[in-house]
Amino acid sequence: MRVVTAAELARALRRRETSASELVDAALGRIRELNPSLNAFALIDDEGARAAAHLADEQLVAGVDLGPLHGVPVAVKDLIDMAGLPTSCGSATSFGATATEDAEVVRRLRSAGAVIIGKTTLHEFAYGATGDRSVHGASRNPTDPSRMSGGSSGGSAVAVAAGMVPLALGTDTAGSVRVPAALCGVVGLKPAYDAVPSTGVYPLAPTLDHVGLFAATSEDALIGYQAISDRPLSLQSGTFSVGWIAPESIAVTDPRIDELTRQFVVSAGFTIDIVQGFPTWQRRQSLFEIFSTLQGREAFRVHEHHLDADADLIDPEVRARLHHGREISDQLYARADEARLELRVIVDELLSTYDVLALPTVPIVAPAVGDRSVLVAGTDLEVRRALLSLTSPWNLAGSPAVSVPTGRLDGLPIAVQLITAPGNEGLLFAAARNLEIALAK
Amino acid sequence: MRVVTAAELARALRRRETSASELVDAALGRIRELNPSLNAFALIDDEGARAAAHLADEQLVAGVDLGPLHGVPVAVKDLIDMAGLPTSCGSATSFGATATEDAEVVRRLRSAGAVIIGKTTLHEFAYGATGDRSVHGASRNPTDPSRMSGGSSGGSAVAVAAGMVPLALGTDTAGSVRVPAALCGVVGLKPAYDAVPSTGVYPLAPTLDHVGLFAATSEDALIGYQAISDRPLSLQSGTFSVGWIAPESIAVTDPRIDELTRQFVVSAGFTIDIVQGFPTWQRRQSLFEIFSTLQGREAFRVHEHHLDADADLIDPEVRARLHHGREISDQLYARADEARLELRVIVDELLSTYDVLALPTVPIVAPAVGDRSVLVAGTDLEVRRALLSLTSPWNLAGSPAVSVPTGRLDGLPIAVQLITAPGNEGLLFAAARNLEIALAK
Repeated sequence: MRVVTAAELARALRRRETSASELVDAALGRIRELNPSLNAFALIDDEGARAAAHLADEQLVAGVDLGPLHGVPVAVKDLIDMAGLPTSCGSATSFGATATEDAEVVRRLRSAGAVIIGKTTLHEFAYGATGDRSVHGASRNPTDPSRMSGGSSGGSAVAVAAGMVPLALGTDTAGSVRVPAALCGVVGLKPAYDAVPSTGVYPLAPTLDHVGLFAATSEDALIGYQAISDRPLSLQSGTFSVGWIAPESIAVTDPRIDELTRQFVVSAGFTIDIVQGFPTWQRRQSLFEIFSTLQGREAFRVHEHHLDADADLIDPEVRARLHHGREISDQLYARADEARLELRVIVDELLSTYDVLALPTVPIVAPAVGDRSVLVAGTDLEVRRALLSLTSPWNLAGSPAVSVPTGRLDGLPIAVQLITAPGNEGLLFAAARNLEIALAK
Repeated sequence: MRVVTAAELARALRRRETSASELVDAALGRIRELNPSLNAFALIDDEGARAAAHLADEQLVAGVDLGPLHGVPVAVKDLIDMAGLPTSCGSATSFGATATEDAEVVRRLRSAGAVIIGKTTLHEFAYGATGDRSVHGASRNPTDPSRMSGGSSGGSAVAVAAGMVPLALGTDTAGSVRVPAALCGVVGLKPAYDAVPSTGVYPLAPTLDHVGLFAATSEDALIGYQAISDRPLSLQSGTFSVGWIAPESIAVTDPRIDELTRQFVVSAGFTIDIVQGFPTWQRRQSLFEIFSTLQGREAFRVHEHHLDADADLIDPEVRARLHHGREISDQLYARADEARLELRVIVDELLSTYDVLALPTVPIVAPAVGDRSVLVAGTDLEVRRALLSLTSPWNLAGSPAVSVPTGRLDGLPIAVQLITAPGNEGLLFAAARNLEIALAK
């Protein structure tokens, strides 16, 4: 499907070829057509969107131009507060709650003139990579609705992939932006830790949580990032060094995905080195175990009150995951935290050797909705663990990371992930742009 | 919660104390607040509703009065066609489909001036009594959101019970209106077979399907019924005879529900006889098996093409149910059809002895979302079978039946079911009204 980008809409708006109100109507029309089966939106704020669009149009007519998002429809993951609307967190435990203030990131989007269409479906409490356990049902992959969207920000990925909106906010604690972006075939950005404020965003595991975004192109991701981050961004060009991390050194990966994504990066004109050091390090303790210990304990602390008060309202799988976190001792958490620091040292070293690290975003294609195990290269994998295995290390490290589509395998999207050091985000956008040009050829 | 009835709204509209547009805004506000956790609506047609309300207001100002539904917000189960909107049937198999014409029942609602707010969540294909297997997730019981709404018309029951709209359409093949009405504490009406046209309504089992409705009161149910049925209705009063069917003669029933509902009917001033004959008859073959054979085979025929084309998109539980229907032979179906005729003879005889038959609507209170077995009086019951056991006989018989709330047990709604002969619907409304007066005392 031909997806209209935010950048194109911005140009059309300024040429008066369309209006923000027309764009809202078009977005609502597409949502109306596709949402009943894809489940991207949990709440459609038609009234708020129409009012915002009306204001945006009046401003443009009056010569007030708030920048490239002015008048552009966007969507917000439904664990990010919007004043006057409920924040469901994908959970029935939210029953009756309404946010009184906008999250800071929503405030920034509005200041940039963006028109927020509604709140998107997520895996309950953002605590799941499959996107199929939510009070609103599974969000579904637009390429094949029998397949999962991935999660937890599944609805935002679907909203962009299905052409409902060009830009959508998500959050990423273990891969919750990059995984659904990869499975649905759109760009997914997890900025550096703390580069985007999390005020008004319901936490999952505070030391690992990142607010991120989805876009059809890296250009749109850049526009979105500039609106929600206040860190200066230096746009770089020229050649830069790329270190390829063999995904098998981290987790079992479909060898065809490894091969296709690596070849794709090379075909886009990058010279790659195969990174040494990552594999040696992680033999002692799996990265995902370190990650799970930190996340499990933090998520339990965040949601402990739900287990006391509303346990019956929580999806059994999510509830079991929360209960498991109760068992993680202080000692175990402290040991995992030390391992996290060791990883950060290794990643820092690698990112002083290479400008950008690259590896597949996800080691498998989108499994069927509801599937919990998948056979890859003769190995039976647990779906959640597989989905998050290659993304969660960069939540441990806090590094900026972007997932970029690289084509299809078995008819389903696959993607490469690019990682850089905080401050070098410009490189990510430049590298992603090169990949997109190669893909379009 | 204080629910405003359609009848009250009709009076307020004519006194110019409110407008149809105000009522739409109020309904949308309540939906916005509660829908993210209760999941009553799959699609909110704000645009269509606002346009319809605007027209209704203009007509009222111009002196055109279409009757008691003029300007009143209503909801429609999402397997009933509305032109220009998708009909999801609660299923991802609906991907991309949009209805081109209104169902006849929708056309009649519009002719009566009703303002349709949106489409409500249902159990996939209407093939489930639990209301918790849908592409949109479980609809949830407003009394306790950890409990099921019942189904298949769960969203419509929730929409009325939560005060989102005073009236909602559903369909009832085995109890899909009456069961969620009982579990959520609202009035649920299954008219006589063929009393309401099913053109534009996606079938489940054509010889058992009935279009019905939900309302907060029997007065509203009467208003709704008169709008969608073209059969003349004689409103009766005076005394009439009530035959109580001991629910245990049909299926295992929580003895407290049997006791409470029967006492309630007596306390409302009715003299009841305990019906003989029903138990004797059904020893040979359980009514639910007869019903299941007929429904299973018909539902398989209706959805056979989905099993060929989109099996992966169907919820596994619903898919297994459809597959089971494939195994039902012509002989088995014919034998069940003969048993249905025998039942009809028995019901006809009973309804020549008694004006109204009565029994609990559902033998249990609402189970937790996702539960598939429940312990009642020491017996482990399959939830679906239990939910439908006391309602499905009246789909076999084609008799008009209404479920009326009779209070609570363990904090959850319970209800009594009243059945009469086609043509005597006026008795149902009169009897229901008597019960409501008794409940309000």
